[in-house]
Amino acid sequence: MRSDQTNRRFLLRRRPGGDFDPAVLELVREPLPVPGPDQALVRVKYLSLDPSNRIWMGEGESYIPPVPLNAVMRGAGIGEVIASNNRRYPVGSKVIGLLGWQDYALVGGGEEFPSQRLPRFLPVPLPSLLGAMGFTGMTAYFGMLDIGRPRRGETVVVSAAAGAVGSVAGQIAKIRGARVVGIAGSREKCDWLVRELGFDAAVNRRDADWRAQLAAACPDGIDVDFENVGGEIMEAVFELLNHHARVVLCGMIAGYGEDGAARGPRNFSVLLMRRIRLQSLIVLDYQRRFTRAGMHLAWWMRRGKLKDRQTVVRGLEQAPAALAGMFRGENTGKLLVELG
Amino acid sequence: MRSDQTNRRFLLRRRPGGDFDPAVLELVREPLPVPGPDQALVRVKYLSLDPSNRIWMGEGESYIPPVPLNAVMRGAGIGEVIASNNRRYPVGSKVIGLLGWQDYALVGGGEEFPSQRLPRFLPVPLPSLLGAMGFTGMTAYFGMLDIGRPRRGETVVVSAAAGAVGSVAGQIAKIRGARVVGIAGSREKCDWLVRELGFDAAVNRRDADWRAQLAAACPDGIDVDFENVGGEIMEAVFELLNHHARVVLCGMIAGYGEDGAARGPRNFSVLLMRRIRLQSLIVLDYQRRFTRAGMHLAWWMRRGKLKDRQTVVRGLEQAPAALAGMFRGENTGKLLVELG
Repeated sequence: MRSDQTNRRFLLRRRPGGDFDPAVLELVREPLPVPGPDQALVRVKYLSLDPSNRIWMGEGESYIPPVPLNAVMRGAGIGEVIASNNRRYPVGSKVIGLLGWQDYALVGGGEEFPSQRLPRFLPVPLPSLLGAMGFTGMTAYFGMLDIGRPRRGETVVVSAAAGAVGSVAGQIAKIRGARVVGIAGSREKCDWLVRELGFDAAVNRRDADWRAQLAAACPDGIDVDFENVGGEIMEAVFELLNHHARVVLCGMIAGYGEDGAARGPRNFSVLLMRRIRLQSLIVLDYQRRFTRAGMHLAWWMRRGKLKDRQTVVRGLEQAPAALAGMFRGENTGKLLVELG
Repeated sequence: MRSDQTNRRFLLRRRPGGDFDPAVLELVREPLPVPGPDQALVRVKYLSLDPSNRIWMGEGESYIPPVPLNAVMRGAGIGEVIASNNRRYPVGSKVIGLLGWQDYALVGGGEEFPSQRLPRFLPVPLPSLLGAMGFTGMTAYFGMLDIGRPRRGETVVVSAAAGAVGSVAGQIAKIRGARVVGIAGSREKCDWLVRELGFDAAVNRRDADWRAQLAAACPDGIDVDFENVGGEIMEAVFELLNHHARVVLCGMIAGYGEDGAARGPRNFSVLLMRRIRLQSLIVLDYQRRFTRAGMHLAWWMRRGKLKDRQTVVRGLEQAPAALAGMFRGENTGKLLVELG
């Protein structure tokens, strides 16, 4: 065990209003927690930063309850068991779960969302288990294949395409033979999408003429919208939707500052007039199929068809600023915090 | 042939802006058309008035092109062949199709949307072929059963429930064992829905507390929204949607005054947060399955499980005012014009 016998934790002190303000989180030091009869103590190694963190801080509509005020911030992570009273979590084993924004977490008895022990031999490095092989990759996998269902030659547009979910979603559509167009927030990201990930085109939404670029990149219209952003980007994509198109409503990061109450698109009637199917997903619904999906994802990664990129920030104390940076589009691929 | 050798026709003189104004249509008299080599002359007997008439008059987003200015108003109808140069349409046969708002129509060669000859022996009266057994009933059938898919005991809400499509959609959900709640525009309509059609509850949207009534009528939330209205009614229904609910986006009559550009609901994010599937339909896509659906609908009608009510207006000249009345909610069930 490390010299510091304290547990640093980020507590949620206020609900963020409007844009995410890192100051709503306060770093406190508490004594190292002592595992109860059915618990194990985990040292957190990686934390996953996700747009949903912002949703969980607010009291707006969500699929799970908000983080209570003055409680530790909720977040997915991977860690190693360093003390245990639970046979399912022996010392030295790795666990994945909602470990929270802290150096040490208790797992086992009493967890609201039970953590899982990882197998001893892993097909990919640990960070990928929070990225392309984790909830992130699973979200892209089921969203694209179950809802989007791109056919060979169809046009798929992915917004926030250089983000964690978007970059995997676009690559899966490529594997399925679709023409894939990404929308991202910088020239560098667009270059990465096209040169490294094999997207057919990428549009920089900070260019003045991004709408015209998008239309030019989709000469046959859009058959699948893998939507991560919402707002005016979604509206521009809706304009180009073909009849019978599918909208995978995966996220609306542009609207999370409104406490989840992202307003509808001005051109909502496109959905009515063009026989569109729109569907959202919460990846936990697909848990029974994770094993099979994981095999697909791992196979694609090993064959080089699916690239997993991470932006890794070092030090728990960096987490709030890094999350704020995500909302400004600063990360490429999966954003992780590596602890201690 | 009747004594009047002129054809009265409504021509679309202007595009309606905002609410539908009957004055955009002008009744003109033209000589009776003479069927060409491959055509037949049809005397129109019934005209179907539909919310989509308003869409076709505008230049907003639609699934078929707008009615050209100074052309005859597009509308579905049933008529009888009175002169023919086309073997498929012998004199005396009945045809159904987009005959237009006129006393006489040419069918056969050159029709943009080909009319169909009706069988000699019909299982239901002619008006029902424009109502519960026609496009109207088919829209309700495929929308409810293919998209809504209510399960026994689930709660289905239908807006504009006393309208042509809504009243059929609600009855089909009842047949499938769902709890059905209608939203309609008067106490009389609500009473009809509950007493005659067997709806479990009906909410009068003109009552001040209609939102509270709706919530009270749906104690277990809403599993299927058969949406015909849009606007604030759709927003109120969205608030009550259960996770995994289905939205059949059949129409948004509240927004047609905006030339089809009905804005999205303020609580659009409900779709994201509650794993909703939303899908629109255009009934023509289901044409291959019309025969089988028609057998179901006819069977239900004969067994008294599906009631088909019409509001019949007499005289072509009444059509524009009757359509305006539809947008004020004046009709119950299918609105038809009976000619000459």
